[in-house]
Amino acid sequence: MAIEKVAARDPDIDAVVAAHAALRARRPLIQCLTNTVSTNFMANVLLAAGASPAMVDNPEEAALFAGIADGVLINLGTPTAAQVESMRLAASAAHKAGRPWVLDPIGAGGLPWRGGVAAALLADEPTIIRGNASEIIGLAGLGGGGKGVDSSDDPSRAIGAAVSLLTRSVAVSASGAVDHVVGKVNGTSGSQVTLIRISGGSALVPRVTATGCSLGALAAAYAAVAPDPFTGLVAAHTHFKVAAELAAEKASHPGTFAIAFIDALDAVDEAAFRGRAKIAAAVSAP
Amino acid sequence: MAIEKVAARDPDIDAVVAAHAALRARRPLIQCLTNTVSTNFMANVLLAAGASPAMVDNPEEAALFAGIADGVLINLGTPTAAQVESMRLAASAAHKAGRPWVLDPIGAGGLPWRGGVAAALLADEPTIIRGNASEIIGLAGLGGGGKGVDSSDDPSRAIGAAVSLLTRSVAVSASGAVDHVVGKVNGTSGSQVTLIRISGGSALVPRVTATGCSLGALAAAYAAVAPDPFTGLVAAHTHFKVAAELAAEKASHPGTFAIAFIDALDAVDEAAFRGRAKIAAAVSAP
Amino acid sequence: MAIEKVAARDPDIDAVVAAHAALRARRPLIQCLTNTVSTNFMANVLLAAGASPAMVDNPEEAALFAGIADGVLINLGTPTAAQVESMRLAASAAHKAGRPWVLDPIGAGGLPWRGGVAAALLADEPTIIRGNASEIIGLAGLGGGGKGVDSSDDPSRAIGAAVSLLTRSVAVSASGAVDHVVGKVNGTSGSQVTLIRISGGSALVPRVTATGCSLGALAAAYAAVAPDPFTGLVAAHTHFKVAAELAAEKASHPGTFAIAFIDALDAVDEAAFRGRAKIAAAVSAP
Repeated sequence: MAIEKVAARDPDIDAVVAAHAALRARRPLIQCLTNTVSTNFMANVLLAAGASPAMVDNPEEAALFAGIADGVLINLGTPTAAQVESMRLAASAAHKAGRPWVLDPIGAGGLPWRGGVAAALLADEPTIIRGNASEIIGLAGLGGGGKGVDSSDDPSRAIGAAVSLLTRSVAVSASGAVDHVVGKVNGTSGSQVTLIRISGGSALVPRVTATGCSLGALAAAYAAVAPDPFTGLVAAHTHFKVAAELAAEKASHPGTFAIAFIDALDAVDEAAFRGRAKIAAAVSAP
Repeated sequence: MAIEKVAARDPDIDAVVAAHAALRARRPLIQCLTNTVSTNFMANVLLAAGASPAMVDNPEEAALFAGIADGVLINLGTPTAAQVESMRLAASAAHKAGRPWVLDPIGAGGLPWRGGVAAALLADEPTIIRGNASEIIGLAGLGGGGKGVDSSDDPSRAIGAAVSLLTRSVAVSASGAVDHVVGKVNGTSGSQVTLIRISGGSALVPRVTATGCSLGALAAAYAAVAPDPFTGLVAAHTHFKVAAELAAEKASHPGTFAIAFIDALDAVDEAAFRGRAKIAAAVSAP
Repeated sequence: MAIEKVAARDPDIDAVVAAHAALRARRPLIQCLTNTVSTNFMANVLLAAGASPAMVDNPEEAALFAGIADGVLINLGTPTAAQVESMRLAASAAHKAGRPWVLDPIGAGGLPWRGGVAAALLADEPTIIRGNASEIIGLAGLGGGGKGVDSSDDPSRAIGAAVSLLTRSVAVSASGAVDHVVGKVNGTSGSQVTLIRISGGSALVPRVTATGCSLGALAAAYAAVAPDPFTGLVAAHTHFKVAAELAAEKASHPGTFAIAFIDALDAVDEAAFRGRAKIAAAVSAP
């Protein structure tokens, strides 16, 4: 199906709960072209949350599989020349087929070679872009916006960069203590940019490797089942924040936290979403 | 040593217990050429069960190491051109040296490029082939049997395909809620095909990534120490089912289950095997 | 900064505690070019212990990143041709920039191709070399010392090999039931070789894959913050031994042990170091 480019209304808890039910019902197949650190954890995150992972990332099969999968995640964490070729093929195939694909531009703003890779991938219009604040600011800078790498970890500083990337992408998020997600929503006078802030979670999340990477994969899974990518991206962030909060009640160190987090991604249900999700919407300057 | 091609008798609980004792005593060195998702978990499965892993999979060393290792696992989950070259070299070296090697044909039936890789690897006569039902059916179809990909997860539907692969392999299994293992046993009127069904385990196993892949590696380890590959393959499946059942008593979500499963692979002893294994034999039409 | 080549005094518990405080305060960025089995666990070890991991290992970025990182780990576990090229570039860049880099020569003594890789890397003078006894003996043999591969797991048998490698490296360790670490210390009549033995830990450590590999990465992190590499290497081994001892009090099988170990790397504090560390110094024949 073609992807709706604009959300019908601000993604809220009802939309998130509906997206979660759709994820569990449809178990979308997500192709992940990702870094070597994240493969195992990402696959387990997708399985626990309710999706099906497949890490097909060779040039011989990447494009074919992007036509089979329900969504594609491309993560620039540890790119090799062959994997980059696969990324280009998969992004192009997903774009042509109208399948959602997510770009996670790790390090794109600070390392010129992968910056070039990221800039080239933007031509295939990632449905969703997800990163931390520095990465979103860095990626926006590659697009000519003039912003360079910023070492800030505060997602609120990446709002302008995220909004500027909406010329290439349907929804963009910067992860952090409070996740910031931007997308377009139909309003009375045409579409307008909305900013959603999702809080909660746990300070242990960045103490476990590949959590952010796995959120990108989960965003692809939600984009495959949600009515629009913005709603899907908000649902993925909310699922992560709620599961992290549940896990933090059972663990105070990163080893046990990582395991409790996988458990919680599986255990979270509508009651947990409604009782714990902290989603706040605000109209942002375009 | 040369591998016995035909089991002396139906693999049963006594044979499994003896194979397990041999595994613990000999700690076979298993070379794994496997997908990027599975490497860490597979190595931990082998260590916990009682074997020694080595993931040597570059073309420069693959053949040499196949002559050093006690068994070889080749898994087609995320093949690259270089890794495929290594697989060909390792399979050929293991075949020539009379060492057991296991083929896990992930996706071989549905993706043409790796289907060609799998078909070429069959020429080196994998000692054991292990997959899920769809993969076994798909691989048999590559051999000219005319069967295509089947999306069924029911291993009983793969029995015919598994038996047809006994022209290339000594023992073949399809994993699922009930594992199905076929091989040849010496009977009063020559060798005959026997089907072993192994039940038990836990529904959480497929909710953890790389469990099936790791079973393939464990099959290589058991094939290195058992009197014949069929007995070894039945022992590997039984070890997995018993450990999964033990783990499911301690965990109800996939994160803690995966950890409890590694623990149980280590903790399982003869009493656990005898008290919990569910092994049923039936003569199958050849 | 330039690295001090000789320790001012024998690394002791006070020096270890100071190095640990520096690690937590500075959170050094460690570039890891490592094997596919270890990536996820190694990143989590670094994060839990107090460092920041980055697994940049492609030829396009390896040298640039070695100039950004505070330390570099090069591990020969599953080398590919492209990764080996990256290793050469990163080692050379780290050497020229005066940044500490660690060589973990897995299998270098037994496999000729990677033996050649290891020998070439020695030209860039690894700040630290860490391995098990066989690997240290094997690597020393590559340098012309005439020793071949030894299958012994007893680090005390590798002391001579470790000392011989001090012509290429500032500090060298062999891991085992008792870790052996050698380096040079300023004495009254010039520098002299000192051997530090660190005991404790748990027999479950070698039952979990990638623990030794991760120790190499932690050594790079400590080398980046300690007054000299010898002190840093002793601190890394001590941190591992103390954390393993803490984890062994909570776990008796390898699955839960691995998780408890990550927790303990995070939880360990000055009191734990002072109460549990077993560090013994002895002057060794040069």
